[in-house]
Amino acid sequence: MSKKIVIVGGVAGGASAAARLRRMDENAEIVLFEKGEYISFANCGLPYYIGNIIEERDALLVQTVEGMSQKFHMDIRVFSEVIKIDPSKKKVTVKNLKTDESYDESYDILLLSPGAHPVKPPIPGISEAENLFTLRNIPDTDAIKSFVDHSAPKSAVVIGGGFIGIEMAENLHHRGLKVTIVEASDQILGPIDYEMAAILHNHIQSKGVDLILGDGVKSFENRGNRIVLQSGKEIETDLIVFAIGVRPETQIAKDAGLKLNERGAIQVNEYLQTSNESIYAIGDAIEVTDFISGKPAMIPLAGPANKQGRIVANNICGKFEKYVGTMGTSVVKVFDMTVASTGNNEKLLKSNEVSYEAIHIHPGSHAGYYPGALPISMKMLFDPSTGKIFGAQAVGYDGTEKRIDVIATAIAAKMSAVDLKELELAYAPPFSSAKDPVNMLGFVAANMMDGLIDTVQWHEIDDIVKNGGILLDVRETIEYHLGAIQGSIHIPLGELRSRFNELPKDKVIHIYCQVGIRGYNAARILVQNGFKVKNLDGGFKTYGSVFL
Amino acid sequence: MSKKIVIVGGVAGGASAAARLRRMDENAEIVLFEKGEYISFANCGLPYYIGNIIEERDALLVQTVEGMSQKFHMDIRVFSEVIKIDPSKKKVTVKNLKTDESYDESYDILLLSPGAHPVKPPIPGISEAENLFTLRNIPDTDAIKSFVDHSAPKSAVVIGGGFIGIEMAENLHHRGLKVTIVEASDQILGPIDYEMAAILHNHIQSKGVDLILGDGVKSFENRGNRIVLQSGKEIETDLIVFAIGVRPETQIAKDAGLKLNERGAIQVNEYLQTSNESIYAIGDAIEVTDFISGKPAMIPLAGPANKQGRIVANNICGKFEKYVGTMGTSVVKVFDMTVASTGNNEKLLKSNEVSYEAIHIHPGSHAGYYPGALPISMKMLFDPSTGKIFGAQAVGYDGTEKRIDVIATAIAAKMSAVDLKELELAYAPPFSSAKDPVNMLGFVAANMMDGLIDTVQWHEIDDIVKNGGILLDVRETIEYHLGAIQGSIHIPLGELRSRFNELPKDKVIHIYCQVGIRGYNAARILVQNGFKVKNLDGGFKTYGSVFL
Ligand SMILES: Cc1cc2nc3c(=O)[nH]c(=O)nc-3n(C[C@H](O)[C@H](O)[C@H](O)COP(=O)(O)OP(=O)(O)OC[C@H]3O[C@@H](n4cnc5c(N)ncnc54)[C@H](O)[C@@H]3O)c2cc1C
Ligand SMILES: Cc1cc2nc3c(=O)[nH]c(=O)nc-3n(C[C@H](O)[C@H](O)[C@H](O)COP(=O)(O)OP(=O)(O)OC[C@H]3O[C@@H](n4cnc5c(N)ncnc54)[C@H](O)[C@@H]3O)c2cc1C
Ligand SMILES: CC(C)(COP(=O)(O)OP(=O)(O)OC[C@H]1O[C@@H](n2cnc3c(N)ncnc32)[C@H](O)[C@@H]1OP(=O)(O)O)[C@@H](O)C(=O)NCCC(=O)NCCS
Ligand SMILES: CC(C)(COP(=O)(O)OP(=O)(O)OC[C@H]1O[C@@H](n2cnc3c(N)ncnc32)[C@H](O)[C@@H]1OP(=O)(O)O)[C@@H](O)C(=O)NCCC(=O)NCCS
Repeated sequence: MSKKIVIVGGVAGGASAAARLRRMDENAEIVLFEKGEYISFANCGLPYYIGNIIEERDALLVQTVEGMSQKFHMDIRVFSEVIKIDPSKKKVTVKNLKTDESYDESYDILLLSPGAHPVKPPIPGISEAENLFTLRNIPDTDAIKSFVDHSAPKSAVVIGGGFIGIEMAENLHHRGLKVTIVEASDQILGPIDYEMAAILHNHIQSKGVDLILGDGVKSFENRGNRIVLQSGKEIETDLIVFAIGVRPETQIAKDAGLKLNERGAIQVNEYLQTSNESIYAIGDAIEVTDFISGKPAMIPLAGPANKQGRIVANNICGKFEKYVGTMGTSVVKVFDMTVASTGNNEKLLKSNEVSYEAIHIHPGSHAGYYPGALPISMKMLFDPSTGKIFGAQAVGYDGTEKRIDVIATAIAAKMSAVDLKELELAYAPPFSSAKDPVNMLGFVAANMMDGLIDTVQWHEIDDIVKNGGILLDVRETIEYHLGAIQGSIHIPLGELRSRFNELPKDKVIHIYCQVGIRGYNAARILVQNGFKVKNLDGGFKTYGSVFL
Repeated sequence: MSKKIVIVGGVAGGASAAARLRRMDENAEIVLFEKGEYISFANCGLPYYIGNIIEERDALLVQTVEGMSQKFHMDIRVFSEVIKIDPSKKKVTVKNLKTDESYDESYDILLLSPGAHPVKPPIPGISEAENLFTLRNIPDTDAIKSFVDHSAPKSAVVIGGGFIGIEMAENLHHRGLKVTIVEASDQILGPIDYEMAAILHNHIQSKGVDLILGDGVKSFENRGNRIVLQSGKEIETDLIVFAIGVRPETQIAKDAGLKLNERGAIQVNEYLQTSNESIYAIGDAIEVTDFISGKPAMIPLAGPANKQGRIVANNICGKFEKYVGTMGTSVVKVFDMTVASTGNNEKLLKSNEVSYEAIHIHPGSHAGYYPGALPISMKMLFDPSTGKIFGAQAVGYDGTEKRIDVIATAIAAKMSAVDLKELELAYAPPFSSAKDPVNMLGFVAANMMDGLIDTVQWHEIDDIVKNGGILLDVRETIEYHLGAIQGSIHIPLGELRSRFNELPKDKVIHIYCQVGIRGYNAARILVQNGFKVKNLDGGFKTYGSVFL
């Protein structure tokens, strides 16, 4: 006998599950409820449509109701909000938003993929702000685009420096608006760490976008034409995009007594089954397991939502498959730059009290002698005793997310940091170097684990100098004169062996060069000649992205 | 007591080993012999310097003799050819090519990284051809570049469609020459399979380069101004680049009694040690283990040479490390396109009599709704019983080698084809899709292994039709009219469920669509309704790249 499967939510998770369900079971009865007008749209493309980068609105609609109904032989009902779940009777109550009528629909299996909604706290003046928008779906997009097209705003303030905030800032800037980003934390893009974000802070500002960090909104005034910040600072603006994060859309799940976490996300087991065995849940609405730490996490991304959709369909059809957790691999374009990351960052490792080492390198995207090579700043976090990779971050241009994808794959395979050195990655001059940046991370990690090199981090240097520590710059004279860390002494690498007498053997010598390579070579020379040394990880470049 | 290490060959393998040796052992005596004028140059950049893409000759010199001697405190002797090894006395005989004088140099450990030289068979007229060049090193490069700069050739024939041949064809074309490629096999770029190379055959010809396949050189006439092919065809040309492959540079190794394979490559153990325990060898000169098949192989690439250099240095210094084999991951730019591959191809699997399945897909480089997405044609070979990945190939534009790098990493980690579906790769519209192409390969592989889909290959279709088999096109009517496989019947996917009566239940129905996705969806519908079906793997697109 064929099952009746009811799905709530018809976009990333819901539509993916529906398509797979049909392929797995031609006879299942599939009913998909979507409260909006559209199913299967490209959430991730919305900012680019507003920016006119994506020109056709239709391009955002991956599948139409008609197309999908026909191809997958399913009952798709839009403008249909599921307002109640009755788990004991196995039915949902649906409100037709066109007619305001409600009716019940029974299910054998219920799948929830209701997503999340933008957080909108009761800041004074927020509801009176007529020029304030959030962005989640097509109507939101239409509203913002229409405002930009027809009200000709000259300036915009984006509140929140997360993925959506940054994409909106870029796209509004592209539309010719004077854009200001306001972010309460001291950095944009939480998934990466401060010194990596610092590179982007510089880049964004170089584009003429104002960046206000460490300051939040206190109130909106004058119907949103003035924003007053916590610091007292005031900004006049024509348009506000409010993008400080999302919250799971789980009121009906809560009302039905499903187990939620304290932040409102639905808790599921490895089979993506909620606390009620006939109800499954996926996507932004659920709590997942952090693949790295094994702890609960909420990671609202399209890749996981889509994959969970396929897995849950298999499970519903009896082809059981576990969802093993999310590592949060992500990428975002930030004007000309790309930033990508995977796994846990340093902030999280610290708060989880995990002991780790960090590596910063700045290799070229491809062979330096082939035109167009640009540096990629990379950071990897790993366990120096076991080699376990906790996470990696990269900021650069071409080839940035490629390296993160490779590391994400290595993490999934539970490879160690040292294994990265043997990876055989594709090399020709336009694409990489004979030793790919990922190999380099492996080399450096191996050297640290083998005790060949000890490092010191960018944020430790100023205190070291202040306390009378020795800081040695081993770059060429011209580089030293163009800018050096205050308090450093200078001996170029090439002269080091003949100038040992200038260095003490009883104190730690902190070495630095531009990116860390010459410093490492200098360290190997000094250590083997009886000196105590530490190399500044990531060199002057990592230090300088924060302090210069 | 410190060791004396003598290295033969100062470029990819030799220089890498030397640098690592010094870092591992500050006191070792390191003597590096290089018969040419330069060490540490960018072999891989040479074609692009000839093409004026790399503008400065100096950019090719990664390290100079002076710089490297100073930084690494080593004795580097150029114009110094090692002409004899005496393993019993542990010494080499060196000829100073400037003075023609010879002398002996003792060693504790000898490391050979002599590379390979271009194959140049005794084709009639080859030695009289004054306009014929091979390309391996800086003098070769200078000779070709000077010929192009000063003799103003109008036409060029590149003999050999391997990496170097193709790069030279592109660069000479870029210099304004009318270029012809002559390749004896029926395809260029041996590491990929025929139907993948076919995409490039079209692309190269679209650039105005003549491509002659399946034809070899019989003789050179008129001092190289005329080439006579085996077919009798004659080509007039101003310039010839001869690039049909390389042969290990191992005469001295052979004379010294080191174990070589039948093609002249030095045989080494896992520690890269030759049959003489004091002599190590790396790079293009050695036989490696094919990481996939476990069989001996010769894979002359810079990545492996560099990594072997580092490993061998560790082994020489007593930090033992195994070299686990080479999978042959590679990439090359072919005009606007990129082709990358890793592992074994179908030709090799066939000749090794391995049973495998092939998957062809044609996903976009990134989300279709974001501008600039272009298809990547991908092929994966795997063992349908175990999921073992044998290899993968990709031909496309942006993001092509990224996917191969990810698969190479998965192969290194011994992930199965099915594991690819769970990889969490970085997604935002400019970079990928929520289901990355690599995930798609995993989905398709899983579906094949689970028996959800049976496929038929591009090369089987014509015979099937000829023998009265049923071929069903499930694309839209407009697509069908724009071009379809002869002998196919047509029912668009959307109408399939209402037109079952047009199809027989007793014969296998071979389905196809444009790339395989709709065909797969159609197959799922038909199979579950009692039909026997096979889906054309890679669809009309894979078929068409060969037959249209
Ligand atoms: C502007 C923007 C850009 C993004 N960019 C990226 C990116 O680049 N990369 C990335 O990985 N992720 C990105 N995301 C996140 C990604 O879109 C989400 O992670 C993903 O869509 C989550 O899928 P889901 O199925 O859980 O929710 P959704 O895709 O949001 O679908 C949920 C649907 O359920 C409907 N629904 C909710 N409750 C009910 C109900 N009670 N009854 C009926 N229907 C209901 C909603 O109307 C909604 O359409 C972006 C998101 C946005 C908004
Ligand atoms: C034009 C070109 C393009 C290439 N492009 C790529 C690419 O894009 N990607 C890739 O992975 N690989 C590429 N390669 C291959 C790559 O360069 C080689 O795999 C790599 O250089 C091999 O390193 P090796 O140390 O074994 O040999 P080499 O780098 O060739 O070094 C060997 C050196 O030994 C010296 N020598 C030999 N015998 C003696 C002796 N008896 N005494 C003293 N010296 C001696 C030679 O003069 C030579 O300089 C390319 C090669 C060429 C020629
Ligand atoms: C599009 C959508 C409806 C899913 O439909 P879908 O048919 O599963 O998705 P695709 O068209 O990508 O096809 C994938 C299927 O084709 C198969 N496939 C892909 N290429 C193939 C090929 N060349 N040959 C055979 N099969 C192939 C895959 O195996 C997969 O099937 P499976 O899941 O049964 O294994 C859903 O993902 C969606 O609505 N997406 C838009 C919303 C969204 O994701 N938003 C967030 C990101 S912007
Ligand atoms: C350049 C060459 C001499 C090798 O020198 P090298 O010092 O080993 O190479 P690199 O400059 O790439 O530096 C790599 C070293 O720096 C370390 N390193 C890299 N980035 C670092 C960082 N940010 N901090 C600390 N160490 C770093 C690596 O760990 C590695 O050291 P290890 O091998 O001891 O682990 C040699 O590879 C060569 O001659 N190449 C040109 C020829 C060639 O390869 N041709 C073929 C391709 S075109």
